[in-house]
Amino acid sequence: MTDPLFGTLCVIGPGLIGSSVLRRLRAHPELVSHLVVADRDPGVLERVRDLDLGDIVTDDLSAAVRDADCVMLCVPVGAIAPIAEAIMPHLKPGAILTDVGSTRRSVVDALTPHLRGDIAYVPAHPMAGTEHSGPDAGFATLFEDRWCLLTPAPDVPARAIDRIAAFWSAMGARIRVMDVDHHDTICAMVSHLPHLIAFTICGTADTLAEDMRSEVLDFAASGFRDFTRIAASDPTMWRDIFLNNSDALLSVLDRFSQDASAMAQAIRDGDEKTIVDTISRGRRIRRSLLENRQA
Amino acid sequence: MTDPLFGTLCVIGPGLIGSSVLRRLRAHPELVSHLVVADRDPGVLERVRDLDLGDIVTDDLSAAVRDADCVMLCVPVGAIAPIAEAIMPHLKPGAILTDVGSTRRSVVDALTPHLRGDIAYVPAHPMAGTEHSGPDAGFATLFEDRWCLLTPAPDVPARAIDRIAAFWSAMGARIRVMDVDHHDTICAMVSHLPHLIAFTICGTADTLAEDMRSEVLDFAASGFRDFTRIAASDPTMWRDIFLNNSDALLSVLDRFSQDASAMAQAIRDGDEKTIVDTISRGRRIRRSLLENRQA
Repeated sequence: MTDPLFGTLCVIGPGLIGSSVLRRLRAHPELVSHLVVADRDPGVLERVRDLDLGDIVTDDLSAAVRDADCVMLCVPVGAIAPIAEAIMPHLKPGAILTDVGSTRRSVVDALTPHLRGDIAYVPAHPMAGTEHSGPDAGFATLFEDRWCLLTPAPDVPARAIDRIAAFWSAMGARIRVMDVDHHDTICAMVSHLPHLIAFTICGTADTLAEDMRSEVLDFAASGFRDFTRIAASDPTMWRDIFLNNSDALLSVLDRFSQDASAMAQAIRDGDEKTIVDTISRGRRIRRSLLENRQA
Repeated sequence: MTDPLFGTLCVIGPGLIGSSVLRRLRAHPELVSHLVVADRDPGVLERVRDLDLGDIVTDDLSAAVRDADCVMLCVPVGAIAPIAEAIMPHLKPGAILTDVGSTRRSVVDALTPHLRGDIAYVPAHPMAGTEHSGPDAGFATLFEDRWCLLTPAPDVPARAIDRIAAFWSAMGARIRVMDVDHHDTICAMVSHLPHLIAFTICGTADTLAEDMRSEVLDFAASGFRDFTRIAASDPTMWRDIFLNNSDALLSVLDRFSQDASAMAQAIRDGDEKTIVDTISRGRRIRRSLLENRQA
Protein backbone atom coordinates (compact mmCIF):
# COMPACT_ATOMS: atom_id res chain seq x y z
CA MET A 1 0.00 0.00 0.00
CA THR A 2 1.30 3.46 -0.93
CA ASP A 3 1.39 6.39 1.47
CA PRO A 4 -1.59 8.77 1.29
CA LEU A 5 -1.07 12.03 -0.62
CA PHE A 6 -1.96 13.98 2.52
CA GLY A 7 -2.52 12.92 6.10
CA THR A 8 -5.13 15.65 6.60
CA LEU A 9 -6.76 17.72 3.86
CA CYS A 10 -8.95 20.73 4.64
CA VAL A 11 -11.47 21.84 1.98
CA ILE A 12 -12.89 25.34 2.52
CA GLY A 13 -16.03 25.97 0.44
CA PRO A 14 -17.65 22.60 -0.44
CA GLY A 15 -19.61 23.79 -3.52
CA LEU A 16 -19.69 22.15 -6.95
CA ILE A 17 -15.87 21.82 -7.18
CA GLY A 18 -15.14 21.24 -3.48
CA SER A 19 -17.85 18.62 -3.00
CA SER A 20 -16.76 16.83 -6.19
CA VAL A 21 -13.22 16.60 -4.75
CA LEU A 22 -14.64 15.29 -1.45
CA ARG A 23 -16.84 12.69 -3.20
CA ARG A 24 -13.87 11.37 -5.13
CA LEU A 25 -11.79 11.18 -1.94
CA ARG A 26 -14.60 9.23 -0.22
CA ALA A 27 -14.54 6.81 -3.17
CA HIS A 28 -10.71 6.48 -2.89
CA PRO A 29 -10.03 6.60 0.88
CA GLU A 30 -6.38 5.60 0.35
CA LEU A 31 -5.62 9.09 -1.06
CA VAL A 32 -6.19 11.17 2.11
CA SER A 33 -6.43 9.86 5.68
CA HIS A 34 -8.52 12.59 7.23
CA LEU A 35 -10.99 15.08 5.67
CA VAL A 36 -11.84 18.42 7.26
CA VAL A 37 -14.57 20.54 5.63
CA ALA A 38 -15.19 24.17 6.54
CA ASP A 39 -17.68 26.79 5.42
CA ARG A 40 -19.27 29.87 6.97
CA ASP A 41 -22.80 28.91 5.82
CA PRO A 42 -24.59 26.61 8.32
CA GLY A 43 -26.96 25.37 5.58
CA VAL A 44 -24.00 24.23 3.47
CA LEU A 45 -22.42 22.46 6.48
CA GLU A 46 -25.67 20.65 7.21
CA ARG A 47 -25.79 19.30 3.64
CA VAL A 48 -22.12 18.24 3.89
CA ARG A 49 -22.92 16.34 7.11
CA ASP A 50 -25.98 14.71 5.54
CA LEU A 51 -23.92 13.65 2.52
CA ASP A 52 -21.10 12.44 4.83
CA LEU A 53 -18.44 14.28 2.85
CA GLY A 54 -16.07 15.05 5.77
CA ASP A 55 -14.67 13.56 8.99
CA ILE A 56 -14.79 16.98 10.67
CA VAL A 57 -17.32 19.57 9.44
CA THR A 58 -17.05 23.03 10.99
CA ASP A 59 -17.66 26.74 10.57
CA ASP A 60 -14.45 27.54 12.48
CA LEU A 61 -11.90 28.15 9.72
CA SER A 62 -8.95 28.71 12.11
CA ALA A 63 -9.55 25.39 13.84
CA ALA A 64 -10.23 23.61 10.54
CA VAL A 65 -6.82 24.40 9.04
CA ARG A 66 -4.71 23.84 12.20
CA ASP A 67 -3.72 20.20 11.51
CA ALA A 68 -4.07 20.19 7.72
CA ASP A 69 -1.11 19.16 5.55
CA CYS A 70 -2.95 20.76 2.65
CA VAL A 71 -5.62 23.48 2.64
CA MET A 72 -7.69 23.80 -0.53
CA LEU A 73 -9.73 26.98 -1.03
CA CYS A 74 -12.76 26.14 -3.22
CA VAL A 75 -14.37 29.58 -2.88
CA PRO A 76 -15.23 32.18 -5.57
CA VAL A 77 -12.26 34.02 -7.08
CA GLY A 78 -12.96 37.22 -5.15
CA ALA A 79 -12.92 35.42 -1.77
CA ILE A 80 -9.64 33.47 -2.15
CA ALA A 81 -7.16 36.16 -1.00
CA PRO A 82 -9.26 37.46 1.97
CA ILE A 83 -9.78 33.93 3.32
CA ALA A 84 -6.12 33.05 2.77
CA GLU A 85 -5.12 36.12 4.77
CA ALA A 86 -7.53 35.19 7.58
CA ILE A 87 -6.31 31.59 7.95
CA MET A 88 -2.58 32.32 7.37
CA PRO A 89 -1.56 32.60 11.08
CA HIS A 90 -3.30 29.30 11.86
CA LEU A 91 -1.78 27.10 9.15
CA LYS A 92 0.35 24.13 10.22
CA PRO A 93 4.09 24.81 9.67
CA GLY A 94 5.12 23.59 6.18
CA ALA A 95 1.54 23.12 4.95
CA ILE A 96 0.62 23.42 1.25
CA LEU A 97 -1.99 26.04 0.34
CA THR A 98 -3.93 25.60 -2.91
CA ASP A 99 -7.14 26.81 -4.54
CA VAL A 100 -9.33 26.20 -7.61
CA GLY A 101 -9.86 29.71 -9.05
CA SER A 102 -10.61 30.39 -12.75
CA THR A 103 -8.47 33.55 -12.90
CA ARG A 104 -4.97 33.83 -11.50
CA ARG A 105 -3.09 37.15 -11.74
CA SER A 106 -5.43 39.19 -9.50
CA VAL A 107 -5.61 36.37 -6.93
CA VAL A 108 -1.86 35.79 -6.85
CA ASP A 109 -1.16 39.53 -6.51
CA ALA A 110 -3.66 39.89 -3.65
CA LEU A 111 -2.56 36.74 -1.82
CA THR A 112 1.24 36.78 -2.13
CA PRO A 113 1.95 39.68 0.30
CA HIS A 114 0.28 37.70 3.10
CA LEU A 115 2.07 34.42 2.41
CA ARG A 116 4.18 32.95 5.25
CA GLY A 117 7.70 31.83 4.27
CA ASP A 118 7.10 28.22 5.30
CA ILE A 119 3.84 27.83 3.32
CA ALA A 120 3.98 26.64 -0.33
CA TYR A 121 1.17 28.17 -2.37
CA VAL A 122 0.28 26.15 -5.49
CA PRO A 123 -2.67 27.73 -7.36
CA ALA A 124 -4.68 25.19 -9.38
CA HIS A 125 -7.47 25.66 -11.90
CA PRO A 126 -9.47 22.53 -12.73
CA MET A 127 -11.24 23.38 -16.03
CA ALA A 128 -14.48 21.65 -15.22
CA GLY A 129 -17.93 22.67 -14.11
CA THR A 130 -21.63 22.61 -14.81
CA GLU A 131 -24.31 25.30 -14.60
CA HIS A 132 -25.24 24.00 -11.11
CA SER A 133 -23.72 24.92 -7.74
CA GLY A 134 -23.61 23.91 -4.07
CA PRO A 135 -22.63 20.69 -2.20
CA ASP A 136 -25.44 18.68 -3.84
CA ALA A 137 -24.25 19.55 -7.37
CA GLY A 138 -20.86 17.76 -7.16
CA PHE A 139 -19.99 14.31 -8.49
CA ALA A 140 -16.86 12.15 -8.26
CA THR A 141 -16.15 12.04 -12.03
CA LEU A 142 -16.37 15.82 -12.68
CA PHE A 143 -12.64 16.16 -13.37
CA GLU A 144 -12.06 13.08 -15.52
CA ASP A 145 -10.16 13.91 -18.73
CA ARG A 146 -10.39 17.64 -17.90
CA TRP A 147 -7.35 19.85 -17.69
CA CYS A 148 -6.07 21.14 -14.35
CA LEU A 149 -3.70 24.10 -14.81
CA LEU A 150 -1.13 24.74 -12.05
CA THR A 151 0.46 28.19 -11.83
CA PRO A 152 3.01 28.15 -8.98
CA ALA A 153 5.52 30.99 -8.54
CA PRO A 154 9.11 30.15 -9.63
CA ASP A 155 10.34 29.83 -6.01
CA VAL A 156 7.77 27.22 -4.92
CA PRO A 157 9.48 23.90 -3.95
CA ALA A 158 9.10 21.18 -6.61
CA ARG A 159 7.95 18.78 -3.87
CA ALA A 160 4.81 20.86 -3.21
CA ILE A 161 4.01 21.21 -6.92
CA ASP A 162 4.42 17.45 -7.41
CA ARG A 163 2.01 16.78 -4.54
CA ILE A 164 -0.73 18.97 -6.01
CA ALA A 165 -0.13 17.52 -9.49
CA ALA A 166 -0.42 13.99 -8.05
CA PHE A 167 -3.60 15.03 -6.25
CA TRP A 168 -5.32 16.26 -9.43
CA SER A 169 -4.11 13.23 -11.38
CA ALA A 170 -5.88 11.15 -8.75
CA MET A 171 -9.01 13.26 -9.41
CA GLY A 172 -8.78 12.05 -13.04
CA ALA A 173 -7.50 15.34 -14.50
CA ARG A 174 -4.71 16.02 -17.01
CA ILE A 175 -2.07 18.38 -15.59
CA ARG A 176 -0.22 21.32 -17.14
CA VAL A 177 2.07 23.71 -15.22
CA MET A 178 2.25 27.24 -16.65
CA ASP A 179 2.94 30.89 -16.00
CA VAL A 180 0.20 33.00 -14.34
CA ASP A 181 -0.30 35.45 -17.22
CA HIS A 182 -0.13 32.72 -19.85
CA HIS A 183 -2.93 30.98 -17.94
CA ASP A 184 -5.07 34.10 -17.83
CA THR A 185 -4.72 34.76 -21.57
CA ILE A 186 -5.57 31.18 -22.50
CA CYS A 187 -8.65 31.15 -20.27
CA ALA A 188 -9.73 34.57 -21.55
CA MET A 189 -9.66 33.12 -25.07
CA VAL A 190 -11.24 29.70 -24.63
CA SER A 191 -13.72 30.45 -21.86
CA HIS A 192 -14.18 34.08 -20.76
CA LEU A 193 -14.49 35.65 -24.25
CA PRO A 194 -17.02 33.03 -25.50
CA HIS A 195 -19.11 33.69 -22.39
CA LEU A 196 -18.90 37.48 -22.84
CA ILE A 197 -20.00 37.10 -26.48
CA ALA A 198 -22.84 34.74 -25.60
CA PHE A 199 -24.18 37.10 -22.92
CA THR A 200 -23.87 40.06 -25.31
CA ILE A 201 -25.54 38.48 -28.34
CA CYS A 202 -28.57 37.50 -26.26
CA GLY A 203 -28.94 41.16 -25.30
CA THR A 204 -28.53 42.29 -28.92
CA ALA A 205 -31.30 39.91 -30.02
CA ASP A 206 -33.55 41.11 -27.23
CA THR A 207 -33.08 44.78 -28.20
CA LEU A 208 -33.66 44.02 -31.87
CA ALA A 209 -36.87 42.16 -31.00
CA GLU A 210 -38.12 45.22 -29.09
CA ASP A 211 -37.20 47.58 -31.93
CA MET A 212 -38.87 45.41 -34.56
CA ARG A 213 -41.86 44.71 -32.31
CA SER A 214 -41.24 41.12 -33.36
CA GLU A 215 -40.65 37.78 -31.74
CA VAL A 216 -37.06 37.33 -32.93
CA LEU A 217 -36.53 34.73 -30.24
CA ASP A 218 -39.35 32.54 -31.57
CA PHE A 219 -37.11 31.68 -34.48
CA ALA A 220 -33.88 30.85 -32.69
CA ALA A 221 -32.22 28.41 -35.07
CA SER A 222 -29.49 26.04 -34.04
CA GLY A 223 -26.82 28.76 -34.10
CA PHE A 224 -28.49 30.88 -31.50
CA ARG A 225 -29.54 27.94 -29.30
CA ASP A 226 -25.91 27.03 -28.65
CA PHE A 227 -25.14 30.62 -27.62
CA THR A 228 -28.00 30.69 -25.11
CA ARG A 229 -26.76 27.43 -23.61
CA ILE A 230 -23.52 29.22 -22.69
CA ALA A 231 -25.44 32.31 -21.55
CA ALA A 232 -27.39 30.33 -18.92
CA SER A 233 -24.46 30.52 -16.46
CA ASP A 234 -24.34 32.16 -13.02
CA PRO A 235 -24.17 36.01 -13.15
CA THR A 236 -22.19 36.55 -9.93
CA MET A 237 -19.52 34.00 -10.79
CA TRP A 238 -19.06 35.47 -14.26
CA ARG A 239 -19.04 39.07 -13.02
CA ASP A 240 -16.14 38.09 -10.71
CA ILE A 241 -14.29 36.33 -13.53
CA PHE A 242 -14.68 39.26 -15.94
CA LEU A 243 -13.50 41.80 -13.34
CA ASN A 244 -10.61 39.64 -12.11
CA ASN A 245 -9.30 38.85 -15.59
CA SER A 246 -10.16 42.15 -17.25
CA ASP A 247 -6.73 42.84 -18.85
CA ALA A 248 -6.43 39.49 -20.62
CA LEU A 249 -10.14 39.45 -21.51
CA LEU A 250 -10.18 42.96 -23.01
CA SER A 251 -7.06 42.10 -24.97
CA VAL A 252 -8.55 38.98 -26.62
CA LEU A 253 -11.87 40.79 -27.12
CA ASP A 254 -9.94 43.46 -29.02
CA ARG A 255 -8.31 40.82 -31.24
CA PHE A 256 -11.68 39.19 -31.84
CA SER A 257 -13.31 42.54 -32.71
CA GLN A 258 -10.60 43.22 -35.29
CA ASP A 259 -11.12 39.75 -36.80
CA ALA A 260 -14.91 40.33 -36.90
CA SER A 261 -14.36 43.69 -38.63
CA ALA A 262 -12.13 41.99 -41.21
CA MET A 263 -14.86 39.40 -41.85
CA ALA A 264 -17.45 42.20 -42.20
CA GLN A 265 -15.21 43.94 -44.72
CA ALA A 266 -14.79 40.71 -46.70
CA ILE A 267 -18.59 40.31 -46.85
CA ARG A 268 -18.99 43.97 -47.88
CA ASP A 269 -16.36 43.50 -50.63
CA GLY A 270 -17.72 40.15 -51.79
CA ASP A 271 -14.26 38.69 -51.03
CA GLU A 272 -15.17 34.99 -51.32
CA LYS A 273 -11.65 33.71 -50.60
CA THR A 274 -11.35 35.40 -47.20
CA ILE A 275 -14.85 34.27 -46.23
CA VAL A 276 -14.25 30.63 -47.18
CA ASP A 277 -10.78 30.67 -45.54
CA THR A 278 -12.26 31.90 -42.25
CA ILE A 279 -15.06 29.32 -42.29
CA SER A 280 -12.68 26.50 -43.22
CA ARG A 281 -10.38 27.46 -40.36
CA GLY A 282 -13.30 27.00 -37.93
CA ARG A 283 -13.92 23.52 -39.30
CA ARG A 284 -10.27 22.60 -38.98
CA ILE A 285 -10.21 23.74 -35.34
CA ARG A 286 -13.37 21.76 -34.67
CA ARG A 287 -11.63 18.66 -36.01
CA SER A 288 -8.52 19.20 -33.89
CA LEU A 289 -10.70 19.57 -30.78
CA LEU A 290 -12.49 16.32 -31.58
CA GLU A 291 -9.15 14.52 -31.96
CA ASN A 292 -8.14 16.01 -28.61
CA ARG A 293 -11.22 14.64 -26.76
CA GLN A 294 -12.34 18.17 -25.82
CA ALA A 295 -15.56 18.33 -27.88
CA MET B 1 -60.32 10.53 -47.85
CA THR B 2 -59.13 14.10 -48.48
CA ASP B 3 -57.76 15.32 -51.81
CA PRO B 4 -53.96 15.32 -52.14
CA LEU B 5 -52.19 18.65 -51.66
CA PHE B 6 -50.69 18.34 -55.13
CA GLY B 7 -51.33 15.88 -57.96
CA THR B 8 -47.68 16.09 -59.08
CA LEU B 9 -44.81 17.63 -57.10
CA CYS B 10 -41.39 18.16 -58.64
CA VAL B 11 -38.41 18.48 -56.26
CA ILE B 12 -35.27 19.91 -57.86
CA GLY B 13 -32.14 19.30 -55.75
CA PRO B 14 -32.75 16.25 -53.49
CA GLY B 15 -30.12 17.10 -50.84
CA LEU B 16 -30.62 17.18 -47.06
CA ILE B 17 -33.80 19.29 -47.25
CA GLY B 18 -35.20 17.93 -50.52
CA SER B 19 -34.65 14.28 -49.62
CA SER B 20 -36.21 14.87 -46.17
CA VAL B 21 -39.33 16.25 -47.90
CA LEU B 22 -39.38 13.22 -50.24
CA ARG B 23 -38.97 10.75 -47.37
CA ARG B 24 -41.89 12.29 -45.51
CA LEU B 25 -44.03 12.19 -48.66
CA ARG B 26 -43.17 8.50 -49.12
CA ALA B 27 -44.32 7.92 -45.52
CA HIS B 28 -47.56 9.85 -46.19
CA PRO B 29 -48.52 8.92 -49.78
CA GLU B 30 -51.94 10.59 -49.42
CA LEU B 31 -50.28 14.05 -49.53
CA VAL B 32 -48.96 13.98 -53.11
CA SER B 33 -50.01 11.54 -55.88
CA HIS B 34 -46.90 11.65 -58.04
CA LEU B 35 -43.28 12.55 -57.19
CA VAL B 36 -40.80 13.83 -59.78
CA VAL B 37 -37.18 14.34 -58.70
CA ALA B 38 -34.62 16.20 -60.80
CA ASP B 39 -30.94 17.00 -60.40
CA ARG B 40 -28.03 17.64 -62.76
CA ASP B 41 -25.67 15.32 -60.84
CA PRO B 42 -25.92 11.68 -62.04
CA GLY B 43 -24.47 10.42 -58.74
CA VAL B 44 -27.22 12.16 -56.79
CA LEU B 45 -29.89 10.73 -59.10
CA GLU B 46 -28.49 7.23 -58.64
CA ARG B 47 -28.76 7.55 -54.86
CA VAL B 48 -32.34 8.88 -55.22
CA ARG B 49 -33.25 5.83 -57.33
CA ASP B 50 -31.59 3.45 -54.85
CA LEU B 51 -33.48 5.07 -51.99
CA ASP B 52 -36.73 5.00 -54.04
CA LEU B 53 -37.50 8.64 -53.28
CA GLY B 54 -39.27 9.49 -56.59
CA ASP B 55 -41.67 8.03 -59.17
CA ILE B 56 -39.73 9.75 -61.97
CA VAL B 57 -36.04 10.56 -61.46
CA THR B 58 -34.38 12.58 -64.20
CA ASP B 59 -31.62 15.03 -65.12
CA ASP B 60 -33.94 16.79 -67.61
CA LEU B 61 -35.25 19.79 -65.66
CA SER B 62 -37.56 21.03 -68.44
CA ALA B 63 -39.27 17.66 -68.74
CA ALA B 64 -39.39 17.23 -64.97
CA VAL B 65 -41.43 20.39 -64.34
CA ARG B 66 -43.84 20.05 -67.31
CA ASP B 67 -46.71 18.31 -65.48
CA ALA B 68 -45.95 19.53 -61.94
CA ASP B 69 -48.67 21.38 -59.97
CA CYS B 70 -45.88 22.51 -57.64
CA VAL B 71 -42.15 22.85 -58.29
CA MET B 72 -39.92 23.05 -55.21
CA LEU B 73 -36.35 24.30 -55.66
CA CYS B 74 -34.18 22.72 -52.91
CA VAL B 75 -30.89 24.07 -54.29
CA PRO B 76 -28.34 26.45 -52.68
CA VAL B 77 -29.42 30.09 -52.39
CA GLY B 78 -27.18 31.23 -55.26
CA ALA B 79 -28.71 28.67 -57.69
CA ILE B 80 -32.43 29.39 -57.08
CA ALA B 81 -32.92 32.33 -59.46
CA PRO B 82 -30.85 30.89 -62.38
CA ILE B 83 -32.70 27.56 -62.22
CA ALA B 84 -36.08 29.32 -61.90
CA GLU B 85 -35.27 31.33 -65.03
CA ALA B 86 -34.26 28.17 -66.93
CA ILE B 87 -37.42 26.21 -66.09
CA MET B 88 -39.88 29.15 -66.34
CA PRO B 89 -40.95 28.57 -69.99
CA HIS B 90 -41.65 24.89 -69.22
CA LEU B 91 -43.82 25.26 -66.12
CA LYS B 92 -47.43 24.01 -66.30
CA PRO B 93 -49.92 26.92 -66.55
CA GLY B 94 -51.05 27.98 -63.06
CA ALA B 95 -48.33 25.99 -61.24
CA ILE B 96 -46.96 27.04 -57.85
CA LEU B 97 -43.21 27.70 -57.63
CA THR B 98 -41.56 27.47 -54.21
CA ASP B 99 -38.08 27.04 -52.72
CA VAL B 100 -36.34 26.46 -49.37
CA GLY B 101 -33.65 29.20 -49.29
CA SER B 102 -32.21 30.64 -46.05
CA THR B 103 -32.00 34.21 -47.39
CA ARG B 104 -34.79 35.98 -49.27
CA ARG B 105 -34.25 39.52 -50.54
CA SER B 106 -31.46 38.75 -53.04
CA VAL B 107 -33.30 35.65 -54.32
CA VAL B 108 -36.65 37.43 -54.70
CA ASP B 109 -35.01 40.38 -56.49
CA ALA B 110 -33.16 38.07 -58.89
CA LEU B 111 -36.12 35.79 -59.56
CA THR B 112 -39.10 38.18 -59.81
CA PRO B 113 -38.22 39.75 -63.23
CA HIS B 114 -38.40 36.27 -64.82
CA LEU B 115 -41.70 35.27 -63.21
CA ARG B 116 -44.60 34.44 -65.55
CA GLY B 117 -47.94 36.11 -64.72
CA ASP B 118 -49.76 32.77 -64.23
CA ILE B 119 -47.16 31.31 -61.83
CA ALA B 120 -47.53 31.93 -58.07
CA TYR B 121 -44.12 32.13 -56.36
CA VAL B 122 -44.24 31.34 -52.63
CA PRO B 123 -40.73 31.42 -51.11
CA ALA B 124 -40.42 29.19 -48.04
CA HIS B 125 -37.60 28.81 -45.51
CA PRO B 126 -37.78 25.72 -43.30
CA MET B 127 -35.47 26.53 -40.35
CA ALA B 128 -34.03 23.06 -40.00
CA GLY B 129 -30.83 21.33 -40.91
CA THR B 130 -27.84 19.34 -39.74
CA GLU B 131 -24.13 19.59 -40.57
CA HIS B 132 -24.60 16.79 -43.15
CA SER B 133 -25.67 17.08 -46.81
CA GLY B 134 -26.82 15.02 -49.81
CA PRO B 135 -29.72 12.60 -50.46
CA ASP B 136 -28.52 10.14 -47.82
CA ALA B 137 -28.51 12.81 -45.07
CA GLY B 138 -32.28 13.45 -45.05
CA PHE B 139 -34.86 12.02 -42.65
CA ALA B 140 -38.65 12.28 -42.52
CA THR B 141 -38.84 14.03 -39.12
CA LEU B 142 -36.33 16.83 -39.89
CA PHE B 143 -39.00 19.56 -39.89
CA GLU B 144 -41.03 18.53 -36.87
CA ASP B 145 -41.63 21.46 -34.48
CA ARG B 146 -39.33 23.65 -36.60
CA TRP B 147 -40.45 26.96 -38.05
CA CYS B 148 -41.11 27.38 -41.75
CA LEU B 149 -41.17 31.06 -42.76
CA LEU B 150 -43.17 31.99 -45.89
CA THR B 151 -42.38 35.32 -47.61
CA PRO B 152 -44.80 35.71 -50.56
CA ALA B 153 -45.13 39.05 -52.36
CA PRO B 154 -48.35 41.00 -51.53
CA ASP B 155 -49.96 40.12 -54.88
CA VAL B 156 -49.62 36.33 -54.59
CA PRO B 157 -53.07 34.63 -54.47
CA ALA B 158 -54.06 33.45 -50.97
CA ARG B 159 -54.93 30.03 -52.39
CA ALA B 160 -51.29 29.39 -53.38
CA ILE B 161 -49.98 30.57 -49.99
CA ASP B 162 -52.49 28.33 -48.20
CA ARG B 163 -51.35 25.34 -50.24
CA ILE B 164 -47.67 25.82 -49.34
CA ALA B 165 -48.59 26.46 -45.70
CA ALA B 166 -50.62 23.24 -45.65
CA PHE B 167 -47.70 21.41 -47.25
CA TRP B 168 -45.23 22.49 -44.57
CA SER B 169 -47.75 21.79 -41.81
CA ALA B 170 -47.92 18.25 -43.21
CA MET B 171 -44.10 18.15 -42.95
CA GLY B 172 -44.54 18.80 -39.21
CA ALA B 173 -43.42 22.46 -39.26
CA ARG B 174 -44.91 25.53 -37.61
CA ILE B 175 -45.76 28.26 -40.16
CA ARG B 176 -45.31 32.02 -40.07
CA VAL B 177 -45.92 34.36 -43.03
CA MET B 178 -43.80 37.51 -43.04
CA ASP B 179 -42.24 40.27 -45.10
CA VAL B 180 -39.02 39.51 -47.03
CA ASP B 181 -36.79 42.04 -45.25
CA HIS B 182 -38.23 41.20 -41.83
CA HIS B 183 -37.30 37.57 -42.55
CA ASP B 184 -33.75 38.49 -43.55
CA THR B 185 -33.16 40.58 -40.41
CA ILE B 186 -34.51 37.88 -38.10
CA CYS B 187 -32.37 35.18 -39.73
CA ALA B 188 -29.31 37.45 -39.69
CA MET B 189 -29.78 37.78 -35.93
CA VAL B 190 -30.63 34.24 -34.83
CA SER B 191 -28.58 32.26 -37.32
CA HIS B 192 -26.18 34.14 -39.62
CA LEU B 193 -24.55 36.38 -36.97
CA PRO B 194 -23.97 33.48 -34.52
CA HIS B 195 -22.31 31.54 -37.33
CA LEU B 196 -20.15 34.51 -38.37
CA ILE B 197 -19.04 34.95 -34.74
CA ALA B 198 -18.34 31.24 -34.30
CA PHE B 199 -16.20 31.10 -37.45
CA THR B 200 -14.37 34.29 -36.42
CA ILE B 201 -13.59 33.31 -32.82
CA CYS B 202 -12.06 30.03 -33.96
CA GLY B 203 -9.70 32.04 -36.18
CA THR B 204 -8.88 34.44 -33.33
CA ALA B 205 -7.97 31.51 -31.07
CA ASP B 206 -5.83 29.96 -33.78
CA THR B 207 -3.89 33.22 -34.34
CA LEU B 208 -3.39 33.71 -30.61
CA ALA B 209 -2.09 30.16 -30.28
CA GLU B 210 0.47 30.84 -33.03
CA ASP B 211 1.53 34.14 -31.43
CA MET B 212 1.91 32.60 -27.98
CA ARG B 213 3.55 29.46 -29.37
CA SER B 214 1.07 27.69 -27.15
CA GLU B 215 -1.61 25.05 -27.45
CA VAL B 216 -4.55 27.34 -26.69
CA LEU B 217 -6.89 24.81 -28.25
CA ASP B 218 -5.79 22.07 -25.83
CA PHE B 219 -7.69 23.90 -23.14
CA ALA B 220 -10.99 24.57 -24.87
CA ALA B 221 -13.43 24.76 -21.98
CA SER B 222 -17.14 24.32 -22.39
CA GLY B 223 -17.65 27.85 -23.72
CA PHE B 224 -15.40 27.37 -26.69
CA ARG B 225 -16.60 23.82 -27.43
CA ASP B 226 -20.12 25.11 -28.15
CA PHE B 227 -18.72 27.72 -30.55
CA THR B 228 -16.76 25.14 -32.50
CA ARG B 229 -19.89 22.99 -32.83
CA ILE B 230 -21.48 25.85 -34.79
CA ALA B 231 -18.28 26.44 -36.74
CA ALA B 232 -18.28 22.89 -38.14
CA SER B 233 -20.78 23.85 -40.89
CA ASP B 234 -20.29 23.80 -44.67
CA PRO B 235 -18.09 26.67 -46.02
CA THR B 236 -19.76 27.04 -49.45
CA MET B 237 -23.27 27.15 -48.04
CA TRP B 238 -22.31 29.76 -45.46
CA ARG B 239 -20.34 31.85 -47.95
CA ASP B 240 -23.51 32.04 -50.11
CA ILE B 241 -25.67 32.96 -47.11
CA PHE B 242 -23.29 35.70 -45.93
CA LEU B 243 -23.04 37.23 -49.42
CA ASN B 244 -26.78 36.96 -50.13
CA ASN B 245 -27.85 38.48 -46.82
CA SER B 246 -24.99 40.95 -46.41
CA ASP B 247 -27.08 44.08 -45.64
CA ALA B 248 -29.09 42.55 -42.81
CA LEU B 249 -26.08 40.64 -41.50
CA LEU B 250 -23.74 43.66 -41.44
CA SER B 251 -26.47 45.67 -39.71
CA VAL B 252 -26.95 43.19 -36.83
CA LEU B 253 -23.17 42.67 -36.63
CA ASP B 254 -22.85 46.43 -36.13
CA ARG B 255 -25.43 46.36 -33.31
CA PHE B 256 -23.66 43.41 -31.70
CA SER B 257 -20.25 45.14 -31.95
CA GLN B 258 -21.66 48.20 -30.19
CA ASP B 259 -23.12 46.01 -27.44
CA ALA B 260 -19.78 44.19 -27.07
CA SER B 261 -17.97 47.55 -26.82
CA ALA B 262 -20.40 48.63 -24.10
CA MET B 263 -19.70 45.41 -22.19
CA ALA B 264 -15.94 45.97 -22.58
CA GLN B 265 -16.32 49.50 -21.21
CA ALA B 266 -18.33 48.18 -18.24
CA ILE B 267 -15.54 45.70 -17.45
CA ARG B 268 -12.90 48.44 -17.83
CA ASP B 269 -14.90 50.70 -15.47
CA GLY B 270 -15.67 47.93 -12.97
CA ASP B 271 -19.38 48.69 -13.57
CA GLU B 272 -20.82 45.64 -11.79
CA LYS B 273 -24.45 46.56 -12.40
CA THR B 274 -24.14 46.67 -16.22
CA ILE B 275 -22.17 43.42 -16.23
CA VAL B 276 -24.69 41.56 -14.07
CA ASP B 277 -27.64 43.03 -16.02
CA THR B 278 -26.18 41.80 -19.32
CA ILE B 279 -25.50 38.31 -17.96
CA SER B 280 -28.95 38.09 -16.35
CA ARG B 281 -30.58 39.07 -19.64
CA GLY B 282 -28.90 36.09 -21.31
CA ARG B 283 -30.30 33.76 -18.63
CA ARG B 284 -33.78 35.19 -19.08
CA ILE B 285 -33.62 34.66 -22.86
CA ARG B 286 -32.42 31.11 -22.31
CA ARG B 287 -35.46 30.48 -20.12
CA SER B 288 -37.88 31.93 -22.70
CA LEU B 289 -36.37 29.70 -25.40
CA LEU B 290 -36.79 26.63 -23.20
CA GLU B 291 -40.45 27.52 -22.64
CA ASN B 292 -40.78 27.90 -26.41
CA ARG B 293 -39.42 24.39 -27.18
CA GLN B 294 -36.53 25.86 -29.20
CA ALA B 295 -33.64 24.84 -26.94
